[in-house]
Amino acid sequence: MKILILNGPNLNLLGTREPEIYGSVSMDTFLTQLEKEFSTHQIFCYQSNVEGEIINRIQVDDFDALIINPGAYTHYSYAIADCLKNVSKPKVEVHISNIYKREAFRQKSVTACCTDAVLSGFGLAGYRLAVLSLIS
Amino acid sequence: MKILILNGPNLNLLGTREPEIYGSVSMDTFLTQLEKEFSTHQIFCYQSNVEGEIINRIQVDDFDALIINPGAYTHYSYAIADCLKNVSKPKVEVHISNIYKREAFRQKSVTACCTDAVLSGFGLAGYRLAVLSLIS
Amino acid sequence: MKILILNGPNLNLLGTREPEIYGSVSMDTFLTQLEKEFSTHQIFCYQSNVEGEIINRIQVDDFDALIINPGAYTHYSYAIADCLKNVSKPKVEVHISNIYKREAFRQKSVTACCTDAVLSGFGLAGYRLAVLSLIS
Amino acid sequence: MKILILNGPNLNLLGTREPEIYGSVSMDTFLTQLEKEFSTHQIFCYQSNVEGEIINRIQVDDFDALIINPGAYTHYSYAIADCLKNVSKPKVEVHISNIYKREAFRQKSVTACCTDAVLSGFGLAGYRLAVLSLIS
Amino acid sequence: MKILILNGPNLNLLGTREPEIYGSVSMDTFLTQLEKEFSTHQIFCYQSNVEGEIINRIQVDDFDALIINPGAYTHYSYAIADCLKNVSKPKVEVHISNIYKREAFRQKSVTACCTDAVLSGFGLAGYRLAVLSLIS
Amino acid sequence: MKILILNGPNLNLLGTREPEIYGSVSMDTFLTQLEKEFSTHQIFCYQSNVEGEIINRIQVDDFDALIINPGAYTHYSYAIADCLKNVSKPKVEVHISNIYKREAFRQKSVTACCTDAVLSGFGLAGYRLAVLSLIS
Amino acid sequence: MKILILNGPNLNLLGTREPEIYGSVSMDTFLTQLEKEFSTHQIFCYQSNVEGEIINRIQVDDFDALIINPGAYTHYSYAIADCLKNVSKPKVEVHISNIYKREAFRQKSVTACCTDAVLSGFGLAGYRLAVLSLIS
Amino acid sequence: MKILILNGPNLNLLGTREPEIYGSVSMDTFLTQLEKEFSTHQIFCYQSNVEGEIINRIQVDDFDALIINPGAYTHYSYAIADCLKNVSKPKVEVHISNIYKREAFRQKSVTACCTDAVLSGFGLAGYRLAVLSLIS
Amino acid sequence: MKILILNGPNLNLLGTREPEIYGSVSMDTFLTQLEKEFSTHQIFCYQSNVEGEIINRIQVDDFDALIINPGAYTHYSYAIADCLKNVSKPKVEVHISNIYKREAFRQKSVTACCTDAVLSGFGLAGYRLAVLSLIS
Amino acid sequence: MKILILNGPNLNLLGTREPEIYGSVSMDTFLTQLEKEFSTHQIFCYQSNVEGEIINRIQVDDFDALIINPGAYTHYSYAIADCLKNVSKPKVEVHISNIYKREAFRQKSVTACCTDAVLSGFGLAGYRLAVLSLIS
Amino acid sequence: MKILILNGPNLNLLGTREPEIYGSVSMDTFLTQLEKEFSTHQIFCYQSNVEGEIINRIQVDDFDALIINPGAYTHYSYAIADCLKNVSKPKVEVHISNIYKREAFRQKSVTACCTDAVLSGFGLAGYRLAVLSLIS
Amino acid sequence: MKILILNGPNLNLLGTREPEIYGSVSMDTFLTQLEKEFSTHQIFCYQSNVEGEIINRIQVDDFDALIINPGAYTHYSYAIADCLKNVSKPKVEVHISNIYKREAFRQKSVTACCTDAVLSGFGLAGYRLAVLSLIS
Repeated sequence: MKILILNGPNLNLLGTREPEIYGSVSMDTFLTQLEKEFSTHQIFCYQSNVEGEIINRIQVDDFDALIINPGAYTHYSYAIADCLKNVSKPKVEVHISNIYKREAFRQKSVTACCTDAVLSGFGLAGYRLAVLSLIS
Repeated sequence: MKILILNGPNLNLLGTREPEIYGSVSMDTFLTQLEKEFSTHQIFCYQSNVEGEIINRIQVDDFDALIINPGAYTHYSYAIADCLKNVSKPKVEVHISNIYKREAFRQKSVTACCTDAVLSGFGLAGYRLAVLSLIS
Repeated sequence: MKILILNGPNLNLLGTREPEIYGSVSMDTFLTQLEKEFSTHQIFCYQSNVEGEIINRIQVDDFDALIINPGAYTHYSYAIADCLKNVSKPKVEVHISNIYKREAFRQKSVTACCTDAVLSGFGLAGYRLAVLSLIS
Repeated sequence: MKILILNGPNLNLLGTREPEIYGSVSMDTFLTQLEKEFSTHQIFCYQSNVEGEIINRIQVDDFDALIINPGAYTHYSYAIADCLKNVSKPKVEVHISNIYKREAFRQKSVTACCTDAVLSGFGLAGYRLAVLSLIS
Repeated sequence: MKILILNGPNLNLLGTREPEIYGSVSMDTFLTQLEKEFSTHQIFCYQSNVEGEIINRIQVDDFDALIINPGAYTHYSYAIADCLKNVSKPKVEVHISNIYKREAFRQKSVTACCTDAVLSGFGLAGYRLAVLSLIS
Repeated sequence: MKILILNGPNLNLLGTREPEIYGSVSMDTFLTQLEKEFSTHQIFCYQSNVEGEIINRIQVDDFDALIINPGAYTHYSYAIADCLKNVSKPKVEVHISNIYKREAFRQKSVTACCTDAVLSGFGLAGYRLAVLSLIS
Repeated sequence: MKILILNGPNLNLLGTREPEIYGSVSMDTFLTQLEKEFSTHQIFCYQSNVEGEIINRIQVDDFDALIINPGAYTHYSYAIADCLKNVSKPKVEVHISNIYKREAFRQKSVTACCTDAVLSGFGLAGYRLAVLSLIS
Repeated sequence: MKILILNGPNLNLLGTREPEIYGSVSMDTFLTQLEKEFSTHQIFCYQSNVEGEIINRIQVDDFDALIINPGAYTHYSYAIADCLKNVSKPKVEVHISNIYKREAFRQKSVTACCTDAVLSGFGLAGYRLAVLSLIS
Repeated sequence: MKILILNGPNLNLLGTREPEIYGSVSMDTFLTQLEKEFSTHQIFCYQSNVEGEIINRIQVDDFDALIINPGAYTHYSYAIADCLKNVSKPKVEVHISNIYKREAFRQKSVTACCTDAVLSGFGLAGYRLAVLSLIS
Repeated sequence: MKILILNGPNLNLLGTREPEIYGSVSMDTFLTQLEKEFSTHQIFCYQSNVEGEIINRIQVDDFDALIINPGAYTHYSYAIADCLKNVSKPKVEVHISNIYKREAFRQKSVTACCTDAVLSGFGLAGYRLAVLSLIS
Repeated sequence: MKILILNGPNLNLLGTREPEIYGSVSMDTFLTQLEKEFSTHQIFCYQSNVEGEIINRIQVDDFDALIINPGAYTHYSYAIADCLKNVSKPKVEVHISNIYKREAFRQKSVTACCTDAVLSGFGLAGYRLAVLSLIS
Repeated sequence: MKILILNGPNLNLLGTREPEIYGSVSMDTFLTQLEKEFSTHQIFCYQSNVEGEIINRIQVDDFDALIINPGAYTHYSYAIADCLKNVSKPKVEVHISNIYKREAFRQKSVTACCTDAVLSGFGLAGYRLAVLSLIS
């Protein structure tokens, strides 16, 4: 199975950004580990800070399943939401931190209703759970 | 690890209740399967329609980790929320359906901020992912 | 026809509770009269102050039609609403007083959309009208 | 007893208008039936699409009791509400469909607080129940 | 094609009313021109300041297509909206000024969702565009 | 000076309608008195329960100054407001009761911003004060 | 009759302050004129920019009737409102400009419900009308 | 005097639950002390996590005065509020912490308007002050 | 212990102001009694209608504990709130009436979060309870 | 006349994206047709998923008139709105579907007030009407 | 240039009040320094806790430019705002802390729209920047 | 000191864009002047219309201090806000116009709470004041 992990703004800083919230492991380190664990599947990652580039990447449509963490765009990007609605393959939204423990604005997701399921608060392990849910 | 799965109101009807939303597998069937899969752990389930009995059950405090699906109480039971805040063990909130695809009132969770993490929209498999997250 | 009249919190006090609003006839006196009037039908009544016990009683599912006055739970019990949604038999919501003449919070019903029809402001006679609507 | 049934905008179309919501029986057919059933009483009907004509008709004050279905004016006509407040005879508000199952704006009634009681969701039978409540 | 242009309150004053917003051409002058341009079609116009008369006119149902400018009723007449919902012929809502440039209350249309399409800000030419859309 | 007193819905009932709020003097009695007091001016009165007829009457434009009490239409008739905006002669809005002492909905006037000045709570004497302000 | 005219903050600047809104006549000039016109009555004026001093002045209670223009305190001084509620003599609230034509915050009066009547938009003449209403 | 102290959900955990907010003294220890101090009165305590059981207990009506701490039910239990409204004996609402220093939802009490008086932020000593207010 | 009782606007009128709400005992009479009861402590009282003078008085800082009834300023004086936040001595907010039984605006306190505890609805006895809480 | 048609996010998918809403004709096919129909004018099209690139394109300023469909950016891009405000040439906003028939968030346009006119619900024909309005 | 620095409530406590927010330098010390730095200009300071005295001071009008920190009055004093609107000389609003990092109520300024410019979060240095902006 | 001035959407048009609001000096001209004035420091500027490119630029992290004018993104870009929160160097938000004098949406800044201080309404001189605050 080809699984695209799509990360939104500031998620390239994982490991150094607010480590008390997002942990101190970088995405690269984590991905290497993930790929090893699920070696029979093809897991690839794309990150962009640009809302429209995230849409561009989804439209390429070269995956069997999508794991998306839209970062702050979660809370206002109806453009990404519209794009996700058009994807008919399995898709899971992941948030590293528990968004219900944070600012009020983070508790509104405009994209979640356009995915199949949502995970929040499991740290990087959330991506792993998402992969597990997709391949089983 | 002793894991308590705590289900709220109407979740005893799983399998027959709105099957297009909640699926057609009963909780009992699902649990038997779950226990077999995680046989080195002790998984036990409690369900109640009564808000206060859910609180009573949490206060028994005979588990190492908690998986809770507060059902409709998710959206207004500050009493359950207060009780969860007092639990210092690992705890995960699970929703069978993707609450972001449903009525507006279901998109507010007053309990989620008192758990570690939240899963929504994976069907019964959400409980399995929650167990996986707790034991790893 | 077996008709269950299900009364919520504080409705056991009918006859003594705020008589200027709810009248001075007790539910028992009224029921005796109702049973006499509709003697070819089976009318039975259940009252509880406990939200979850109301759900338990509905789930027993031993009636052909349901008349429910959820009392104050009308205004916030999504748990009872979820339970009612699962009932596919005829169901009518009754309010003794005209809820539109009272506090703002009483004008929101979260359960009414899960019943077939609603009656409000007819006093105890509202139950009688509900029975009439169900048997005709 | 002289009972005026007062219908608001678009209710002249009953039988053809959105029949899945309002049924396929016309008001005329229904009234004939109603008059037969309650032949010892005088039941007469007035319909207008014009807000002010409904007020004019109420002010004629030639009835012993009033059954009013203000149609869409239910939701914003403070002018009709003011007029109803001035009527000291028995008065019942009727809605054919269950307004709690429909759009949000239909769940606010500005006129209901100026009548004695409200019926919603019984179909045309709601008018019959209203008559029953008035004559008993 | 028989096209009814239905104008709401104060639109009989076109040409003299707030000309900086609505222009200085009268509806009559404009209509003569329109009829000439679309001489193979039958275009007729009705204007009323009375909400219920607008409903009455729609119910006559003697047109193949409807162009409606409900004037200020756009913003609160659920009665006209209900009536429009019952019309299964092509229908277009027209506003002479760009309602998005004006007071907040003018940016809510309760009728637009009951028509097929909406035009706003083209001046009187908006009616012409509406005709064009209907006949092509 | 020709002064038109324009009264909205239910104001024809002055003297009998809720006398504790509106007093027990009829509009006719009051007008006779007013005409006597201001005999060098021409004061005439028009009342209608129909929103659109109030607009029609304003458009006749046969007055030098306008005193309007739009009754309940004060609170939602943007159609009357639009019409008033088009009147460039002196115009005063009058309310018999002090609207600030009453229901919340009565404290919003959508028409007041389209008149020159507003009087509220002076009883019928408010019309007299309005006349005084116009002729001085 | 002893009538106190009580003016709130910035009303000492009448004549120079935003003359396009408040006119170019000073309060002193206007008062002289007013006193002359109503020479059989005793009209005296007090102005303060200090909310509490306005309360102090009202509590002196040396008047038969009160005309108050609370200026900006109109919109938030529950303290002045509480004080006015305690005054059982005739009292009228005056606003020089038509507050309905101005900023949204000016359209909420927390004091008006504690006076008998309200005048708005008559310019300085509003004080004159208020005096007239009190002495007649 | 027979005084019932009625504690809502999670208040059985006093002494161990969030001690930085609720202190480290258990209710039992505190009650023993209270009974000693007020030995001429009869003070008894009831606690339940179940909303309906709190209502049941109030309806027993075996007390001369009531001290109630509805815990989290304070903020949404209209059912308890309705029950309290029916109690015509002295009744005081107590909150251990200062609810104004905490989450927004804790600053709305739906029960307080159905008691005589409210105490908040005095720690357990609040119950003592409540007793003092009742017996003096 | 030196205890300052600080009363806000209109509280100098206690005994005569709305006695059905605030009672008919004056503050002076009450204070004399209070001083007698707590003769080993020094209780002194200050009242002002001026928001800023209340702040001035708090800043004098010549007390060991503060009892404040900010009157209507409770509901909007962030200036007094800021001042109270700066006081590190024990401080209690008192309201004579039960603010939860009154207008909506009285149920918001902007100062309460800056004091230690709040008392509401005990009449003048509330001050006595506050003293008791401070000295014990 | 040089007319730029500027399409926002996901509009490159026209023809395949939610065809029940947006139709099954691609933008390319439609444009070819449009160019043919208006061959004396120069119509060119630009599409981007990136908000800032849409702004960049507008700033190039190489057109005589602008037709913009900002897609989902319609509802939150104040940046595009600011850019449009700076364009002094004719500009029309087009929406393919009737936004009034869809989700609430789609009924707020932050860009429409910065264009001259708005078209919604005409399908692709909306672009044709826009061209017609610009060239006539 | 004569520059008045006008400080509102509690700003006389600078240096001791919440030093983690407002710093530990007193206004006096800071002013001495400021005067030295800008010795060719005349900088004088006025502070009051009384809203109306701040208005009084502004009306004295003995300055060439105004620097105002209205303290908590920033958030609700429409009276000070009205007064500032009347000042046609240069005027700058200063806040010592970054009001966007604090409570929600501090992020609304009713006075800022009546000054030329606003500075927030620079500590006492904000006054220095304001002076710089005025004299350059 | 290396200071990055980061400008958001449409700020490349300074000098020609709405000059009555933003002035008629271009950013280039202004920067030349600024560099000359602060020649011992290194001031460089970056502008982009693309939200994500602004984030990219901040992440380069080649500055000692940051001056940011996020333009319209100020009001909704939680993505830029998240990025700024991660910057631990001195950072100032600048707005050329006084945002408090403009549309309501411009008065909400989602980024300001992630910077140290905010300047608004000083024109281009605001950047100069920001530099001054950073280097002193």
